[in-house]
Amino acid sequence: VYEILARTVYGKRKRTEVGVDRLVNEGAYTAAYPLHEGPFKLQSHEIHPDELNQRQVLHYYWARWCKWFKYQPLDHIREYFGEKIALYFAWLFYTAWLLPAAIVGTLVFVSGVMSMDTNTPEDICSSGAKYPMCPLCKTCDAWNMSDICTMAKLGYLFDHPGTVFFSVFMSFWAVTFLEFWKRKMATLAHHWDCMDFHEEEQERPRPEFAATAPTVEENPVTGVKEPYFPEKTRLSRMFTGSMVIVLMLCVVIIFLVTVVMCRGVISVMMYQSGSPVLRTEAGTIANICSSIVNLGFILVMGQVYTALAEQLTKWMHRTQTQHDNAFTLKVFIFQFVNFYSSPFYVAFFKGFVGYPTNYGTLFGMRNEDCGPGGCLIELAEQLFIIMVGKQLINNIQEFIISKVKAWRQKRTLASVLGDDEQDEPRPWEEDYKLVPCGGLFEEYLEMLQFGFITIFVAAFPLAPLFALLNNWVEIRLDAHKFVCEYRRPVAERAQNIGVWFNILEALSHLSVIANAFLIAFTSDFLPRLLYQYKFSNDLNGYVNFTLAYAPLNYTDYPYKAFRDNDGMYTLFYWELLAVRLGFIIAFEHVVFFVLRAIDWIVPDVPESLELKIKRERYLAKQALAENQEALL
Amino acid sequence: VYEILARTVYGKRKRTEVGVDRLVNEGAYTAAYPLHEGPFKLQSHEIHPDELNQRQVLHYYWARWCKWFKYQPLDHIREYFGEKIALYFAWLFYTAWLLPAAIVGTLVFVSGVMSMDTNTPEDICSSGAKYPMCPLCKTCDAWNMSDICTMAKLGYLFDHPGTVFFSVFMSFWAVTFLEFWKRKMATLAHHWDCMDFHEEEQERPRPEFAATAPTVEENPVTGVKEPYFPEKTRLSRMFTGSMVIVLMLCVVIIFLVTVVMCRGVISVMMYQSGSPVLRTEAGTIANICSSIVNLGFILVMGQVYTALAEQLTKWMHRTQTQHDNAFTLKVFIFQFVNFYSSPFYVAFFKGFVGYPTNYGTLFGMRNEDCGPGGCLIELAEQLFIIMVGKQLINNIQEFIISKVKAWRQKRTLASVLGDDEQDEPRPWEEDYKLVPCGGLFEEYLEMLQFGFITIFVAAFPLAPLFALLNNWVEIRLDAHKFVCEYRRPVAERAQNIGVWFNILEALSHLSVIANAFLIAFTSDFLPRLLYQYKFSNDLNGYVNFTLAYAPLNYTDYPYKAFRDNDGMYTLFYWELLAVRLGFIIAFEHVVFFVLRAIDWIVPDVPESLELKIKRERYLAKQALAENQEALL
Repeated sequence: VYEILARTVYGKRKRTEVGVDRLVNEGAYTAAYPLHEGPFKLQSHEIHPDELNQRQVLHYYWARWCKWFKYQPLDHIREYFGEKIALYFAWLFYTAWLLPAAIVGTLVFVSGVMSMDTNTPEDICSSGAKYPMCPLCKTCDAWNMSDICTMAKLGYLFDHPGTVFFSVFMSFWAVTFLEFWKRKMATLAHHWDCMDFHEEEQERPRPEFAATAPTVEENPVTGVKEPYFPEKTRLSRMFTGSMVIVLMLCVVIIFLVTVVMCRGVISVMMYQSGSPVLRTEAGTIANICSSIVNLGFILVMGQVYTALAEQLTKWMHRTQTQHDNAFTLKVFIFQFVNFYSSPFYVAFFKGFVGYPTNYGTLFGMRNEDCGPGGCLIELAEQLFIIMVGKQLINNIQEFIISKVKAWRQKRTLASVLGDDEQDEPRPWEEDYKLVPCGGLFEEYLEMLQFGFITIFVAAFPLAPLFALLNNWVEIRLDAHKFVCEYRRPVAERAQNIGVWFNILEALSHLSVIANAFLIAFTSDFLPRLLYQYKFSNDLNGYVNFTLAYAPLNYTDYPYKAFRDNDGMYTLFYWELLAVRLGFIIAFEHVVFFVLRAIDWIVPDVPESLELKIKRERYLAKQALAENQEALL
Repeated sequence: VYEILARTVYGKRKRTEVGVDRLVNEGAYTAAYPLHEGPFKLQSHEIHPDELNQRQVLHYYWARWCKWFKYQPLDHIREYFGEKIALYFAWLFYTAWLLPAAIVGTLVFVSGVMSMDTNTPEDICSSGAKYPMCPLCKTCDAWNMSDICTMAKLGYLFDHPGTVFFSVFMSFWAVTFLEFWKRKMATLAHHWDCMDFHEEEQERPRPEFAATAPTVEENPVTGVKEPYFPEKTRLSRMFTGSMVIVLMLCVVIIFLVTVVMCRGVISVMMYQSGSPVLRTEAGTIANICSSIVNLGFILVMGQVYTALAEQLTKWMHRTQTQHDNAFTLKVFIFQFVNFYSSPFYVAFFKGFVGYPTNYGTLFGMRNEDCGPGGCLIELAEQLFIIMVGKQLINNIQEFIISKVKAWRQKRTLASVLGDDEQDEPRPWEEDYKLVPCGGLFEEYLEMLQFGFITIFVAAFPLAPLFALLNNWVEIRLDAHKFVCEYRRPVAERAQNIGVWFNILEALSHLSVIANAFLIAFTSDFLPRLLYQYKFSNDLNGYVNFTLAYAPLNYTDYPYKAFRDNDGMYTLFYWELLAVRLGFIIAFEHVVFFVLRAIDWIVPDVPESLELKIKRERYLAKQALAENQEALL
């Protein structure tokens, strides 16, 4: 049901690609799109369901907030929008898998809250002025250990044995989820009959590719002459692309350093303000402020880079699928660093401060130390702000932008039609008012949250809950967009979610490693355990044990480290390091081994489907044989 | 060209399987086999190559020792023996891949020999009676450090920086090899047109399966009634099978302990013999003796278990492929433990001896300590004996057994034919004299050497060389067997080497982990490095540094450990432990990451083949479409 039929235009140049896409590309037409099947609003509420058009069915039964508890009608979506979009909504079924993760995460968090009072080492809160501590910056004063009682308690929320359990749980969750998603994809692909869909043979070259490819060559598969990109140009372009990524990553690092400096400046300002409240909470406030700044940078950089990547990927890839995969990978790598560099920094690199008389410095500022509650709580704060903030802003943005675009589109149409307007607008005029569908890339990119709920789950057990809430909103928001606000996109076939799956798999593996390191190095779990094992079963004296005294004649205040008076590491430090590394080795080997076993035991295609496929193949072969016999 | 045509016999029972296999199974015939294409010997040397029969061609151009430098004529092998056997010989192409590994390994070994003199710590050889050492057993005397000068020098052969490089090299070698083997398999499968060979649909049930399956059920794929094994029986059988494996593994462990005890007894006997030569070399001699005993156990146990596994796997699997895979996995797991438990013990568990006044004991005997040259040299000795000994014995065995079998077969035939013998025996009589082909399982099992050359490569850099030599012999030996000594096997189709590939992949992954641990814990590489970093750039004083003194009032002799006078570990011990664990983490992450990258970048199917397949699919589709149009 194309509005504009493709006229075959044989150009004088050696371009062989023809069709409406090219005409739109060259400006002969302003747009070409399939029509929606009429209005999405019900004309009256007494219509029999069978008389509704597809769009009305989708809107009524699916694309409304009041249907939030309903499953996705994937077959209807596929029929109306094509397989690619239906697969996206099938992927959102991951929401259902988030439910157990969210429940367990919340339970872990609640159990942390419940046991907070009984489990915080008493020495901190009741120590009074017993432990005056080393000043945190050059111009600061010494402070009392008991000042940070609240922070220590809060720290316990994110740093108790339940967290360790939860991060193991989430590693398994992620892999099991991916395993079942594979099966789901296979089932859907078979159900929709695109299991044997081979992109390269059946997809046409993209019009952008056809328009810019410098030479024409015979396609080795079909034998038809086609636009072609010589290998050499390809290499040089790939090189340029990589350089741009590296450059942009450098920019990200620069921004990261800026944020770190900013945090330092804010906390120094707080200290010097003199207010006692501001002073004790200086770290937290600085952290929150800088996280917000960071979020701003992340969003802006993301926009800039996506636009850049679009330019970089535009020409080189023959089919839409190839193009999408290359674009996705490119943007993902960037966005990954963009989003996760700051949490990674806090989790693994913050806290290498050295010791009194020998502080490490960066641009003349003393290296940051984590706040008194430990690095994990800072990480949690930051994750909360980046993840939830991003989700909120994104959803709002999507909502507003689509409204604005629709309004602009309407105005353009009005100016084109002039006073020529009829009483009842023709359907293509009606649809022209809508926003062109921008593809699914942005939608999938929101699944960066998969990283937040797996990689840093040890720091932020509530992440799955927030992801669940976000996805719940996201589904209906996207449904509404596709049904009501977008022009109907040209249906595209697909048998899976492409390179996204590989990305998710890489993320889930990375998450196991990150969690191991997080528990071993960032969390206080192992030092406490070792202390209990070696010295006393309760944690009495633990706080005192973690304190080191500065070199003689420098200051009498202790600081947090396992060092002796010369600043050298103590035996306990090395023991602890061995335990930490041993923990990482044990954790990774066990988890990866079990994951391998799961991967091996659970077949990628459900058994019943496998049988069905075999049966079909068998019947097809039989039919062919009979047919040939009949011909003979 | 079957000798005996299958008569269709419809049994009275509900068995539906018929055919010559069943008749042979029930004893109606003594054998059924395809005939060879005449004699393999050339009748005269002046025959034109075109007049040779296939068997003669194979014999003349391939199955002779003097063709040792020739490639495998895979297409001819396939034509004569079928895909399955051709794939086996293709797999032996791994021999070619062994070449670089063998060269590098030999170079590493030679470089060890060259630098042996310059690199052994002088303190050992020139110390004289400076370091009298703690006695090695209860009744032994103290000994001088300088006694072990030779052993220390030899130890250096297996324990120098080149070894570390070589084990990294071999990890990459293994994965690259597997990657290319995948490509080779795909190419061969396409070349032989069995890429779309689906075992389950196209293979018939095995006669043993058909004969013992308790019920008949409709095959869900073909819809034909077929013998069937209910799920319940299957589970109980699987349980029995697992139990037998566990039981047998326990037996292996018992034998292992026996070997350890035997080693202890031998070395004590040596010490008490009084001869100074026997005393210094006691450890080595004991080790070699016990390794030989161990090899004997391994070979006997292997035979017993394989027979057992055959019984266990006989009934349950519908097709030959399924049966082979199950059998292979079962035997492999057992043989793996059987072969590798002893080297694993020496590499990772030997040497936990405790310290004077507090020795660990096993059945009243003090735990074994590694000899003065380090555990690595003992491991190398053991590997040498097990690997080379096994290969020698296997090849000799194969040779003799096939001769004996052939002789017996000939006698049976003679007694059947009686005096009835004709001048020229008929071809089926000629072939009846040959040995029935026993399948490829035993042949593939010899590839256990893949484990020796990857898992323990850090200890024994010459392993690839020995494997190469063995394979070179193996190829021609097997070729001769198949062409001249075996009855011609029924040709079987196969598109890959089945579960063996998964086993090899598992081995290659395991090897990375094993090498990391071997370098970190068994080798002296890291302690030396850390000593150089912390104390002095040359190794002066290193030997003294590694010695600890026993608790006061016990004995004045030092022993090898990083402990203080109370037997507690020193700071250096913990530092070293941290370094070791850190090394494992770094090594594994880097190697696995690179391996992943290789796996990702190198496509499983060569690009040109991929294009070809696509082209064929495209043409087939076109032909089908045209055909249908023509019909309409």
